[in-house]
Amino acid sequence: MTPTVDAERFRERFDAFNEIGATERGGVNRPSLSPANRAARDRLVEWFEAAGLDVTVDEMGNLFGRRAGAADSLAPVLFGSHVDSQYNGGRYDGVVGVLGALEVVEALDDAGVETERPLEIVAWSNEEGVRFQPDMLGSGVFTGTFDVEYAYEREDGDGRRFGEELERIGYRGAAPCEPRDIHCYFELHVEQGPYLDERGLRIGVVEGVYGFSWVNAAFEGSADHAGPTPMHLRHDALVATSDVVRSVRRIAGTEGTDLVGTVGSIDAHPNSINVIPERVEFTLDLRSYDDEVVDAAVERVRKEVEWAAEREGVAWEFEEIMRIDADPFAAECIEAVERAARSVLGDGDYARLVSGAGHDATYLNDLCPTGMVFVPSVDGISHVEEEYTEWEDVVAGTEVLLHAVVEKANE
Amino acid sequence: MTPTVDAERFRERFDAFNEIGATERGGVNRPSLSPANRAARDRLVEWFEAAGLDVTVDEMGNLFGRRAGAADSLAPVLFGSHVDSQYNGGRYDGVVGVLGALEVVEALDDAGVETERPLEIVAWSNEEGVRFQPDMLGSGVFTGTFDVEYAYEREDGDGRRFGEELERIGYRGAAPCEPRDIHCYFELHVEQGPYLDERGLRIGVVEGVYGFSWVNAAFEGSADHAGPTPMHLRHDALVATSDVVRSVRRIAGTEGTDLVGTVGSIDAHPNSINVIPERVEFTLDLRSYDDEVVDAAVERVRKEVEWAAEREGVAWEFEEIMRIDADPFAAECIEAVERAARSVLGDGDYARLVSGAGHDATYLNDLCPTGMVFVPSVDGISHVEEEYTEWEDVVAGTEVLLHAVVEKANE
Repeated sequence: MTPTVDAERFRERFDAFNEIGATERGGVNRPSLSPANRAARDRLVEWFEAAGLDVTVDEMGNLFGRRAGAADSLAPVLFGSHVDSQYNGGRYDGVVGVLGALEVVEALDDAGVETERPLEIVAWSNEEGVRFQPDMLGSGVFTGTFDVEYAYEREDGDGRRFGEELERIGYRGAAPCEPRDIHCYFELHVEQGPYLDERGLRIGVVEGVYGFSWVNAAFEGSADHAGPTPMHLRHDALVATSDVVRSVRRIAGTEGTDLVGTVGSIDAHPNSINVIPERVEFTLDLRSYDDEVVDAAVERVRKEVEWAAEREGVAWEFEEIMRIDADPFAAECIEAVERAARSVLGDGDYARLVSGAGHDATYLNDLCPTGMVFVPSVDGISHVEEEYTEWEDVVAGTEVLLHAVVEKANE
Repeated sequence: MTPTVDAERFRERFDAFNEIGATERGGVNRPSLSPANRAARDRLVEWFEAAGLDVTVDEMGNLFGRRAGAADSLAPVLFGSHVDSQYNGGRYDGVVGVLGALEVVEALDDAGVETERPLEIVAWSNEEGVRFQPDMLGSGVFTGTFDVEYAYEREDGDGRRFGEELERIGYRGAAPCEPRDIHCYFELHVEQGPYLDERGLRIGVVEGVYGFSWVNAAFEGSADHAGPTPMHLRHDALVATSDVVRSVRRIAGTEGTDLVGTVGSIDAHPNSINVIPERVEFTLDLRSYDDEVVDAAVERVRKEVEWAAEREGVAWEFEEIMRIDADPFAAECIEAVERAARSVLGDGDYARLVSGAGHDATYLNDLCPTGMVFVPSVDGISHVEEEYTEWEDVVAGTEVLLHAVVEKANE
């Protein structure tokens, strides 16, 4: 018997899960280590155990469910995602990948299929990074990017530490969180962008993740009175900043590359209606799948900052605070996902694409061969309560995950 | 004997006064109704009484010192300014006008000069408006623009009310604060702009005050993820705002008028490094001595807001929250100040100008003929600890005030 996703069972479980922390406008509010996040974890443990999985919670609160393989000493195939949410976020982000992984296991059980390698499904801790920064903290420790002590010391806006809050909700587990031998990793996720939806595609075969640069920049001029100060004597930090915002839009929109650029955060001082802005601090987010394009964009925007400062007679600051290279996934995993997509949909309803956003898979790719399956985000909308994916696409994505997992688990 | 300012006595008093609330960087921190503002008021009462003045505190905390005239039932000549400061503001703003008024009285006493009309010197409450808005609250009630109850209900950022705080520091006086018969009003003040300093002038004969419009505006787009959202699908409220900031600079700098324009305050939401700004709120301050120029500028910027919203595919808001017409002072007072300036400096070291900033004199001009004397602000700097005026210019300005007051007080 060929294992198949049970769309109705999956849907019932998805709806029941999203009653936890449900918001009035149809989203969920389950930020990392909140009471609703604990309730969501409790539900997962219950369902993992009901599915006969061997449940482990590690010292980062990452939650694993293991299904034995015929050759159980081989390295496992790992797959999953996360269930923490943005504040008032959507129902699909992360949840689709964790409950989809559970559905894969149950479909195999229904069909009486045993794989050679053991399977492990996972829900990673603190993927969103809205309460504790940085994001993807659970998978970052698991893959050796951060150590546990660093993670435990992260503080939220109220000064509460990740380690203490994890202990408080009862999910500071005993198992070490550290790199171990994994055969490969797969993650099913909503696209969080409009690529698939715009083209009427149902599955994205993810080739890798954009690299990016984050920059903190500032201008500093003079806080003169908005009345008596003539225009030619002004040193207005906001005018200089506006030049840079325009430059970022122009550079990203017109250079024939895949570059996207955003000024997301801006703070002006003294921020008063009748005082010329003395100091403006702002951020840059520059992304491309080509690291040289990011390099060139950072240098170009740095020049634009210098030019704007010179025009306006203000001082400038420009500091790159994070730089992540583009991260191509393993060819063997991309091809496994693509074979699975062709098998599920036939030709034409899927396409290869690159992810603009980071995922737990980005860190896992440092540890083991990794691949991702995307399903469409309607209108490209994500991180808000209106986030939506057609259920038949969630089911198709889970079928693709199932096929890819089984192929790799029998290697 | 001709009455003359005693530059040394005045300087000693000025320095002693500015020890109250002195900051490490050479400024003063005496915001409205603060402990330092109370101490400054106590010192004024002490000095007013020592100068033989009849002291009155009205229900707004405005502080008057009266010197009898030969025909004491005639309407008085009123002159003064304010002693509340910006947070970490300068030593000259307001103080020069109040202590200069006291010096005028003492110079008359030294010379044994009696005027026909009584003289009143005044320190107005809450001119700066940094703790309680609106600014110029004491003179605004005195001239009938606001009523006392409205003023008492004004709250600071911590929810404390003006009336209660005035009571707490002991300056809620018994005398009614309401319009009464005033022969004319003069105010000596630092320019707070670079006009005089740029031209090497020592005295400004103020012809009037710029009119202005204050606007609250906003754009609202979509808070999409800065990674997966391609440039052509963005609705970025900050890009639209930057267009408007550039437009304001261009319109104010290039239309051949005296218009000045400022975007002083900006707030972005969610203000996150990797999220496209969904909503940006910002302010406009547009000023000219010609009300039609302000009208045209408001309409032009409103159009720029509409065009920017259309280009970016975002919603827009635009609300004028305050509109003050240009305020020409009384010809008789302007001429009296000009005669005084010519008498003190001879030709060449003074000029007529218009004030870009509002002053208590703006409200007094609604009640009685009003004039102002400006002394230079070095580099046009004001509202900061570095604010500076050459002492010989303060003395010259006080001499001009003395001459103008004596001329009008003998009418």
